[in-house]
Amino acid sequence: MSRSAARISLTLTGWLAALLGAAASACAPQPQSSCVQAPQALLQPAASTPFSLLAAPGASALPTAPAAAEPAGGMWLLNAFPSEQVARKYGFSPTPRWLDHVRLASVRMAGGCSGSIVSPDGLVMTNHHCAHHCIDQLSTAKKNYVETGFTALASKDEVRCPNMELNELVEITDVTQRVNAATQGLTGKQYNDTQKGELSKIEKECASADDVRCDVVSLYHGGLYHLYKYRRFQDIRLVFAPEFSIAFFGGDPDNFMFPRYDLDVSFVRIYDHDKPARMQQYFKWSAEGSKPGELTFIPGHPWSTSRDLTVAELEYVRDQHLPGRLLRLTEARGVLHEFAKRGPEQKRISSATLFGVENGVKALKGRREALLDPALMTSKRAAEQSLRARVAADPALAAEVGGAWDAIAAAQHEAAEIRKPMQQLETGWGFWSDLFGCARALVRSTQELTVPNETRLREYVDSRMPAVKQQILSTAPIYDEFEILTLSLSLSQLREELGVDAPIVKKIFGKQSPQELATALVKGTRLKDLKVRRALLEGGKAAVDASTDPMIELARRMDPDARAIRARYEDHVDAVVKKNSELIAKARFKVYGTSIYPDATSTLRITYGEVKGWQEQGHEVAPITKIGGAFERATGQAPFALPASWLSAKDKLNPATPMNFCTTNDIIGGNSGSPVINKDAEIVGLVFDGNIHSLGGDYAFDASKNRAVALHSAGLLEALDKVYGAKRIRDELAAARGK
Amino acid sequence: MSRSAARISLTLTGWLAALLGAAASACAPQPQSSCVQAPQALLQPAASTPFSLLAAPGASALPTAPAAAEPAGGMWLLNAFPSEQVARKYGFSPTPRWLDHVRLASVRMAGGCSGSIVSPDGLVMTNHHCAHHCIDQLSTAKKNYVETGFTALASKDEVRCPNMELNELVEITDVTQRVNAATQGLTGKQYNDTQKGELSKIEKECASADDVRCDVVSLYHGGLYHLYKYRRFQDIRLVFAPEFSIAFFGGDPDNFMFPRYDLDVSFVRIYDHDKPARMQQYFKWSAEGSKPGELTFIPGHPWSTSRDLTVAELEYVRDQHLPGRLLRLTEARGVLHEFAKRGPEQKRISSATLFGVENGVKALKGRREALLDPALMTSKRAAEQSLRARVAADPALAAEVGGAWDAIAAAQHEAAEIRKPMQQLETGWGFWSDLFGCARALVRSTQELTVPNETRLREYVDSRMPAVKQQILSTAPIYDEFEILTLSLSLSQLREELGVDAPIVKKIFGKQSPQELATALVKGTRLKDLKVRRALLEGGKAAVDASTDPMIELARRMDPDARAIRARYEDHVDAVVKKNSELIAKARFKVYGTSIYPDATSTLRITYGEVKGWQEQGHEVAPITKIGGAFERATGQAPFALPASWLSAKDKLNPATPMNFCTTNDIIGGNSGSPVINKDAEIVGLVFDGNIHSLGGDYAFDASKNRAVALHSAGLLEALDKVYGAKRIRDELAAARGK
Repeated sequence: MSRSAARISLTLTGWLAALLGAAASACAPQPQSSCVQAPQALLQPAASTPFSLLAAPGASALPTAPAAAEPAGGMWLLNAFPSEQVARKYGFSPTPRWLDHVRLASVRMAGGCSGSIVSPDGLVMTNHHCAHHCIDQLSTAKKNYVETGFTALASKDEVRCPNMELNELVEITDVTQRVNAATQGLTGKQYNDTQKGELSKIEKECASADDVRCDVVSLYHGGLYHLYKYRRFQDIRLVFAPEFSIAFFGGDPDNFMFPRYDLDVSFVRIYDHDKPARMQQYFKWSAEGSKPGELTFIPGHPWSTSRDLTVAELEYVRDQHLPGRLLRLTEARGVLHEFAKRGPEQKRISSATLFGVENGVKALKGRREALLDPALMTSKRAAEQSLRARVAADPALAAEVGGAWDAIAAAQHEAAEIRKPMQQLETGWGFWSDLFGCARALVRSTQELTVPNETRLREYVDSRMPAVKQQILSTAPIYDEFEILTLSLSLSQLREELGVDAPIVKKIFGKQSPQELATALVKGTRLKDLKVRRALLEGGKAAVDASTDPMIELARRMDPDARAIRARYEDHVDAVVKKNSELIAKARFKVYGTSIYPDATSTLRITYGEVKGWQEQGHEVAPITKIGGAFERATGQAPFALPASWLSAKDKLNPATPMNFCTTNDIIGGNSGSPVINKDAEIVGLVFDGNIHSLGGDYAFDASKNRAVALHSAGLLEALDKVYGAKRIRDELAAARGK
Repeated sequence: MSRSAARISLTLTGWLAALLGAAASACAPQPQSSCVQAPQALLQPAASTPFSLLAAPGASALPTAPAAAEPAGGMWLLNAFPSEQVARKYGFSPTPRWLDHVRLASVRMAGGCSGSIVSPDGLVMTNHHCAHHCIDQLSTAKKNYVETGFTALASKDEVRCPNMELNELVEITDVTQRVNAATQGLTGKQYNDTQKGELSKIEKECASADDVRCDVVSLYHGGLYHLYKYRRFQDIRLVFAPEFSIAFFGGDPDNFMFPRYDLDVSFVRIYDHDKPARMQQYFKWSAEGSKPGELTFIPGHPWSTSRDLTVAELEYVRDQHLPGRLLRLTEARGVLHEFAKRGPEQKRISSATLFGVENGVKALKGRREALLDPALMTSKRAAEQSLRARVAADPALAAEVGGAWDAIAAAQHEAAEIRKPMQQLETGWGFWSDLFGCARALVRSTQELTVPNETRLREYVDSRMPAVKQQILSTAPIYDEFEILTLSLSLSQLREELGVDAPIVKKIFGKQSPQELATALVKGTRLKDLKVRRALLEGGKAAVDASTDPMIELARRMDPDARAIRARYEDHVDAVVKKNSELIAKARFKVYGTSIYPDATSTLRITYGEVKGWQEQGHEVAPITKIGGAFERATGQAPFALPASWLSAKDKLNPATPMNFCTTNDIIGGNSGSPVINKDAEIVGLVFDGNIHSLGGDYAFDASKNRAVALHSAGLLEALDKVYGAKRIRDELAAARGK
């Protein structure tokens, strides 16, 4: 899970991102945009209850719930951190100043990962898998940095990533009252339109320049609305990445497993006006890293949890959301595996995508299994019944809120009803193609720019256009053969889902087969040419309307149908769920109080825990692995083959150096790339995964088994020194430590 | 559905068959064998309640249940046919003599299809897709009969199918008392072992020679046991098959759809001592075929329905059975699509498999969607509660039967617990390879033959050995490249499911990757050589034990684990379900009486209905299509491309001739190849599919929408005449009509 959203949203194309609930293709809208959020609500049934049912007093705990001594989990807001709880257990109480420092030294990667600033010169540490797509985009048939790794020996060797964006959270403002005042008394389409308009207005007022990013975020499923103001950095350059084979040693079989032996790290640097950015706040480096039992904090941007969904929403997730996605992903896995056998170049250009697909399969499977555990659903039902009983007992509350659960349940039926056309046409499952993503972004953005900011589709409001432009004008390479492969696969899935005789299917295909249509589109379009994209973007709606480019024509042709199904979804599913979730949030605040954390929503959070193993089928899993273990596990065959650099450095490496470790911190997808820090806010590790039990963390945190999996700071330094001779980075980290 | 089990079980390899619940690889055991039945019970949660809940008095009907005027469905035993019901509605009452004639003119295809004898010289009509695997096996890179079709111009041109078996049901004996007496008072392993022993004994006493096949079949989920005695024919020769492109016109997109325009027919001939077999009973041909509203009967071998399962079993099907299979099938679909792109020969050798996989995906998806319909589950719950209430109200019955539902529910949890190793190791999901199937059959059959008949694994008892031998000694071609493809895919799924560190995984793989292991096994084995297989079979256990063939070694190496998990399954799941299903059957007989049909179990059934369309989203679907419609639907692109023979015969064909039609008969997978007959027992059509609504027929029959889809007899004759000039077959059919 830890990897899933993070890796996927950052490194993969719109299709896969849409499938997994994030989005970042060459031209797809940013994950924060409502284009994605709307489908996402269908992916993840839209928000509802505002607190963790499990943490809520009065809610029954899972049979597997933590013993009293265990940390209870929680992805806490940095401005509402339970310092006293931590102090009681660990004797350390983070101060507001400590928390502000952590906030400013943490970065969000716009595709969905986390990162940490580790030097005053803008050096940022994140995972290899968070930069995988960039490393891939910078590679060619002759220089495959994914395979060989990448080290910039000097500042001038640092290379810009075609579409990476980092954000630093500089300010949080509560705008709940303003948002609620605007939608007071409204429902359905009116509620939705008015709220969207108000959010776009607030964001526009805040985003004074292209290097400021402003998002209104919903917390507690509509219980609170906060305005997050970020510094936006778009010139990010690659500094260091190891070989994929050690970054992801053990591959898919070991993914979400522990013990592990992965060097899943990369360093990038923030540039500002073509120079390394000077950063006020950055994390220092711990001399020794952490030991078993030691207190750990993990700040980062967990992408999404579903702990507060209603039972009806969880059933939708179990029966529709997860199986639908898994079926697409497993087919894609089969196709990609075979495609890679065509030759080394095909293997290279498809590897990052395969990586994301495999990761997605494993993550979603784990989540499905969690929901099939009868204990979990029983507990969720009991908690919901308990809250509903409390509501029913209070006549005033019952009158206002009593119907909310049934309304949300009805919206799930509507969601199931329109699921297929919504996913295929609007969420983009039917069009797995960067070129189509560009075409759609051009068609839509130019059209939306002709209407007032407040009435636009949310992903094209003024405050979000810088991201859209960066995506449209990305220099990332596009490969015809791969585009045809993925587009024809997704088109045939579209035809399968909607039926060969559906009018929209006839409109898309005419008499062509998926393979023919995909080939004609990819071969015929001129959108591969950046100049053509730029001309269309600058020419605006008139230029796009006049275009005879086949990809643009397709995007134009199917857009009315896509917009229609989206409108139906927004008005009859999304609005209903949002409105009624707000009501449940209100009831919850009233019944249980407010001292608990909200579901994750890609906003900055911090979680506390400790270095600790767990009991697995009767035996104890130790919390720290050593470098020597990697050599023992190696078979010489992928994905268990160590790179040549490691094999030749074997004698120099101290086998007893800690390599990976696990902690009880409560993390999830989006935390990939998060630093693990100690109470002195020093870096002791780098999160790159969760264990298999953490996959259920989407629905409930089980402190006895959920574990964050991280690269140990000592193992990282050892590898930088002895394997890579990466003296420049080492010196920079050491200098940072010295200050 | 109509196609699914039928086509799949007949034409596909053991892996796919296992996945879909049938089995017939080169060397896999026959679908009637308990090797398959055990896994099947896991596939299809083992049998439970003995009547259709929907047909049962006191059971609430589905909201979508048929109006009173509609036929209520039902797959009736030929020795318990509701002739009065039919007479009341249609004024025709089938006599025992009429039913005996139908029984003897119907054949079962051992892999899972149905067929009809249509001349005194052993000519048999079935679907193209039921002979697809044979057509494929007879093809080579130079002569691709799947693509070009096949017509034997003279008797000497008829070619033997490498492993096709037909059975004619000659006698039915009730052995319920004998079986029950043997297991009286037993439970668990004792119950299971004793029952298996008794069944093997009964079958052995009955099967006096290799050309007699005897199966004890369970009806009403253990309410009755009947001994079915068949004439067994193993020399079956191909006579006629059209081109795949017209047999399956519309391909996967049109599969389970209607209107349709498919010529899904083939003719084979039964040989006896190298001469066409003389058959006493055969169907004559209707001069005109049937018209809307006309009464139709369909005899055949519906493979399996789940209408009488408990709610706990249906939930298992919904949450574990169907999603698990679908995930494997969609991945296989992706792999096969890509593999076919390697070249024309790869396309040819994989096409029959792809066909089955696509069909399986569509069928299982439809079934899953049926189970996700809240109305269906609500109705099933209500019916179960109603019966349980009746049982609870009768103290004696409650004492004996009251605990049965909970016991079955507990067995489903156990099934979920052991699902992965059971499927991977014993059901064979992990080993998608004909060569491995041969190796396993050799290892197991030679081992089993050393122990008494009554204690053997059920698929290796004496009465079933002829089928095992035919499979082991099959001359069907085996392609290395394809074997490596499928074996490496399934091995990597095995490793994924069981985990890289599981002892059995280490035992299977050592340090090899799935691709390496599959390649080494396929390249290294000598089992492709029929002489080697024969020598091992004849050499018995000593020869197999001494073999150093890598495939035999693998089958030997993993066999103890496979047997152990099977034993756990049989004793803790299968025995519990069978025993308690018998109890529920008893309660049901007592509460509701016995005048209803049992769930389908691959035994001969007959269903009645009429030629009739249905209402689809407000518009009326007409029940008969015309030949001209095929030309209108054609695009020139597969799967909507008509073959050259049709294009050049266009002017000769009468476009108004009926081509396909649909009826209200209640059919399901296994009915593929069934004749549609009128009240004079004349052939008016040939079943080849069901409509999309029929997929839910696994769980409940909805007469307002479920339809059987068939080739019209007039369209078939028109094509034989005008497209294929198949005078010899035409004359034979005409002669049969004349008699």
